[in-house]
Amino acid sequence: MLTYVLEKTDSEPLYVQIYKHIKKDIENGVIKANEKLPSKRVLAENLGVSIITVENAYSQLTSEGYVKALPKRGYFAENISSFQSYVHNQNAVSSEKTNITSAAKDFPFAIWAKLMREDLSNEREMLMTRPPINGTERLRCAIAKHIRQFRNIDVSPDRIVIGAGTEYLYMLINILIGEGRTFGVEDPGYSKISDIYSCLGAKCAYIPMESDGVDIAALKASGADIMHISPSHHFPTGVVTSVGKRYALLGWASEKEGRYIIEDDYDSEFRLSGRPIPSLLSIDAADRVIYMNTFSKSLSPTIRISYMVLPVSLTERFRQKLNCCSCTVSTFEQYTLARFIDEGYFEKHINRVKHLYKKRRDNMLEKISQYPLFKGCRVTGQDSGLHCLIEFDTQLSDGELLNEVTKLGFHARLLSDYYKKKPTDALHTLIFYYD
Amino acid sequence: MLTYVLEKTDSEPLYVQIYKHIKKDIENGVIKANEKLPSKRVLAENLGVSIITVENAYSQLTSEGYVKALPKRGYFAENISSFQSYVHNQNAVSSEKTNITSAAKDFPFAIWAKLMREDLSNEREMLMTRPPINGTERLRCAIAKHIRQFRNIDVSPDRIVIGAGTEYLYMLINILIGEGRTFGVEDPGYSKISDIYSCLGAKCAYIPMESDGVDIAALKASGADIMHISPSHHFPTGVVTSVGKRYALLGWASEKEGRYIIEDDYDSEFRLSGRPIPSLLSIDAADRVIYMNTFSKSLSPTIRISYMVLPVSLTERFRQKLNCCSCTVSTFEQYTLARFIDEGYFEKHINRVKHLYKKRRDNMLEKISQYPLFKGCRVTGQDSGLHCLIEFDTQLSDGELLNEVTKLGFHARLLSDYYKKKPTDALHTLIFYYD
Repeated sequence: MLTYVLEKTDSEPLYVQIYKHIKKDIENGVIKANEKLPSKRVLAENLGVSIITVENAYSQLTSEGYVKALPKRGYFAENISSFQSYVHNQNAVSSEKTNITSAAKDFPFAIWAKLMREDLSNEREMLMTRPPINGTERLRCAIAKHIRQFRNIDVSPDRIVIGAGTEYLYMLINILIGEGRTFGVEDPGYSKISDIYSCLGAKCAYIPMESDGVDIAALKASGADIMHISPSHHFPTGVVTSVGKRYALLGWASEKEGRYIIEDDYDSEFRLSGRPIPSLLSIDAADRVIYMNTFSKSLSPTIRISYMVLPVSLTERFRQKLNCCSCTVSTFEQYTLARFIDEGYFEKHINRVKHLYKKRRDNMLEKISQYPLFKGCRVTGQDSGLHCLIEFDTQLSDGELLNEVTKLGFHARLLSDYYKKKPTDALHTLIFYYD
Repeated sequence: MLTYVLEKTDSEPLYVQIYKHIKKDIENGVIKANEKLPSKRVLAENLGVSIITVENAYSQLTSEGYVKALPKRGYFAENISSFQSYVHNQNAVSSEKTNITSAAKDFPFAIWAKLMREDLSNEREMLMTRPPINGTERLRCAIAKHIRQFRNIDVSPDRIVIGAGTEYLYMLINILIGEGRTFGVEDPGYSKISDIYSCLGAKCAYIPMESDGVDIAALKASGADIMHISPSHHFPTGVVTSVGKRYALLGWASEKEGRYIIEDDYDSEFRLSGRPIPSLLSIDAADRVIYMNTFSKSLSPTIRISYMVLPVSLTERFRQKLNCCSCTVSTFEQYTLARFIDEGYFEKHINRVKHLYKKRRDNMLEKISQYPLFKGCRVTGQDSGLHCLIEFDTQLSDGELLNEVTKLGFHARLLSDYYKKKPTDALHTLIFYYD
């Protein structure tokens, strides 16, 4: 019987404690794959908590893929390997253990609190005024200035749309231009993107990645109308789309009415070395690029603020078609973030966090040099973002490799897990996270 | 010695229970101003709890101004009148500018700022933890408790979904059950509802309103699968759906697989007189009602927090189908709102605002009695919400009528503007807002 010591604390509900204990036991193999968990009633009795509490813990574990519920049979631990790809889809670049990203651990609470407090006392009228659907002018101006300075993107704040997370922005794009269209997504890639388009009822075409970006011939053959890419730093391969391919993509988009490129610039702030990579939007003469970025990675995934820059030709259509919706981000946080950017705190914060990532990356790379397992390995993608790829020179299967690496205490995932069309040969390649 | 009965519940930590007991005793004068409270150690022993628990309760009381800590002397009850003026200070901010709803003018800035500040300093890990798609457990528990108390709706927090505004919740409903379905909407009605469903690509059927709710025969003939209604207080007519019609609606929903009723309870907090009207959800034995409410009306439309209660049968489907999405409301505001509700501020706020509305309504009704234009008019729907209907005994056209009324300084709109199928005769009826 599972028995855990639960603490009565204010900060962590009992169900979270139970959830964490069981999760850890599954990860560490204390609870084996396919092992049956006690029934909710029995576990509740054993731990001296309510059945609802156990139910909440089980439902969290189920929704994260650690546990499966079999009708009339009960709850069973999932197979760890299937879990690993699953959780990764959920959390992307966030730390598995605490579900907290490194950037979030370093969240600038004191400054945020100060700005929020000042606004709540000085800007009451502004905070109570409903913004247009695309967000407060104040935050859109701050973002426009920021991306002009840091991404060389010079756009009017009118073209910027602020929304509660990138998933919500995908929904807006789907409403705006998605009807009957096919979305091209990168393969391998971040599966959440295709999951959301599919969930919205849109069709997805999986376009293979090459060493310099997506396969343009495959894109042309796919029938996709809208291509969703991350040209500055592809997840998970780290590939930077070459200049030639960028123009080929823009050419593809301009060939036919209704074609668009969604440039997902999700971690461009975290370039750790080398020169910054120009955005696709900044060279888009055909007005076909929807640029998208988020503060989830750079501030915290729990503050739901993302934004996109629409092509000029879609700006008016957006205003008309989505006029019935309201902006999904609270004005309180829009104004706080606007001041956070305008008064230079965001830049300082990014620099501090980049510095930390760099240190974590260097520590990790130094650590691997101690282990024979890593002999002859090839590290790529370490210039940017919160992860790199390591290709091993090994006879081990991918599963064995992951096991070894996990045993040594690294936080890693199989590259092959991110493929829609699974590679036939073992890739001997893992994604390593700096946390 | 203070002695309280404490309950072991998951939803309310011990320290909160102690804090509430003492607070109540101070408010009721059971503990007098400047009376010395027992030391933390002594009270902990007496209640059989840890010193930390008492410390937390005392610190909460101190930070809210119920108790003061005097160095080396201990804890003393504050003078109640100073506290009351503190709460009262919330009322001080009342901007008269337009574009701000009355509720928003009365937004409790000082308390909100205090709660936010405390969380930003004490609950950092919680604020950085990604909640499930349906929102933080903390806020869902607070809402569950609130609607149990105020709407007699007894549901598990698992069934509650928190989202950034009702429009966003409509989107989720459309993804969850909308595919290929027709949404029935009230005619007349709030046109934003049908606008959004249409914008999402769903079909709408306009169901005429009768004096006791929607026309059930028309609903049956319409082919609608999902009926979106506001049975407690229809906008704009103020009609309250009769008990007979409520059961007819539930009967209609249960007749066929895939039928649902969306109960839009948007202004149930603002019932100004008479007994509260039971919700449709509270009599729904067939598990077909999606209950929906928002803090836009009761707090501010610029804080984007709404919620819905799903039928049990949709809860698991929701978790599976929308697992790829993230909750759209910042955890910062979720926790602040949860405390705002849990600690009784929301109830106080609603009461204060209701009182103001009542006064504004009475002023308006008194004002109209001065003008000959209103002679013989019939006022309806004045028991609830932020508006009433006035039917005039006049030969003026509706346009001329609106002109006259506007000239007299009232904020009114034509009832006929809210019809999809425009009435052929002039209705001589205007909607008057209390602001």
